[in-house]
Amino acid sequence: MKSYRKELWFDIPSRREFRNITPYVVDCLRESGITEGLLLCNAMHITASVFINDDESGLHNDFERWLEDLAPHAPISRYQHNKTGEDNGDAHLKRTVMGREVVVAVTAGQLDFGPWEQIFYGEFDGQRRKRVLVKIIGE
Amino acid sequence: MKSYRKELWFDIPSRREFRNITPYVVDCLRESGITEGLLLCNAMHITASVFINDDESGLHNDFERWLEDLAPHAPISRYQHNKTGEDNGDAHLKRTVMGREVVVAVTAGQLDFGPWEQIFYGEFDGQRRKRVLVKIIGE
Amino acid sequence: MKSYRKELWFDIPSRREFRNITPYVVDCLRESGITEGLLLCNAMHITASVFINDDESGLHNDFERWLEDLAPHAPISRYQHNKTGEDNGDAHLKRTVMGREVVVAVTAGQLDFGPWEQIFYGEFDGQRRKRVLVKIIGE
Repeated sequence: MKSYRKELWFDIPSRREFRNITPYVVDCLRESGITEGLLLCNAMHITASVFINDDESGLHNDFERWLEDLAPHAPISRYQHNKTGEDNGDAHLKRTVMGREVVVAVTAGQLDFGPWEQIFYGEFDGQRRKRVLVKIIGE
Repeated sequence: MKSYRKELWFDIPSRREFRNITPYVVDCLRESGITEGLLLCNAMHITASVFINDDESGLHNDFERWLEDLAPHAPISRYQHNKTGEDNGDAHLKRTVMGREVVVAVTAGQLDFGPWEQIFYGEFDGQRRKRVLVKIIGE
Repeated sequence: MKSYRKELWFDIPSRREFRNITPYVVDCLRESGITEGLLLCNAMHITASVFINDDESGLHNDFERWLEDLAPHAPISRYQHNKTGEDNGDAHLKRTVMGREVVVAVTAGQLDFGPWEQIFYGEFDGQRRKRVLVKIIGE
């Protein structure tokens, strides 16, 4: 069995953003030399997500509005977590909706994806350097 | 290490449905000959889900109403995504709540499940052929 | 390829609770002798979750209030599922938001975690013995 590990670092200039990281993950897979197996891609922070959906800006705006409706950022007094001095209570909830991780099949050296699947980093508390982990096991 | 891959195709006659696909996944596991490992089952489309829950029709009605409340289908103008000519903005959000994938332990040649766990395909934009991927790695 | 399996049992005295189970999962990893691979940790019940977030009690209170807002427990007549004699319709929905499972990279014999990542068991229908599965594959 082979295994491969890499950290991808991002420094998102705004509080929230969805960024297509598929090309970086494809680079990891190529570098790993693994052709059959499973690939895990997860946020290493608890106020960020990794998820799979469509690379369409209108949809990303829909996600943004929907998440803000489900777990509003303000007033920050709305969240007990923010009594610790944080202002990111909403970010923990938004990340929960969007998910921490994806597991992707690796087949014939490729991400085994349907036609529209793309991997996104979802930042909900940005303006600092944060990491995504790529781990691949297989042969 | 052994690996196995199969696509399961579904053509759901209505827009939305939850279908128990556990028997198909069990067939895949038997066909794979893998007795110890991990099984990934994921929707290959971004308006559909694979999830684990109870095979109880009342619960499925509860899921349907709850998701329609969280992310209503109409009016379709509600979603910027639908400006692309689609009418499935809600389906991307509903699939996000229910999840893209499940990872299941394989132990002694069986899906290593608790008493009520069953795997479902959740369709949120049906009336066309769509795919689920089953990938198994192990020995 | 090595594989390892263990069930962790919990008997939560109240209906709902979030419990940090990271130490138990670390024990499993040590016992497995696996140093490179993937670890799956999932609830074996469909009214409970395993998820990764922060071990901060204010945040846990925020999760509790938010989930109760998204899927209230009462009135139990609100859920068709409860016509079967159950009163846990809400628990199936809450577990769906929080997730069934996590997949964690194993690197150099450790859970390959970011600084704040901790694994929680989320109980939404407690007061009875329920199980979490830990499955590890690798070398």
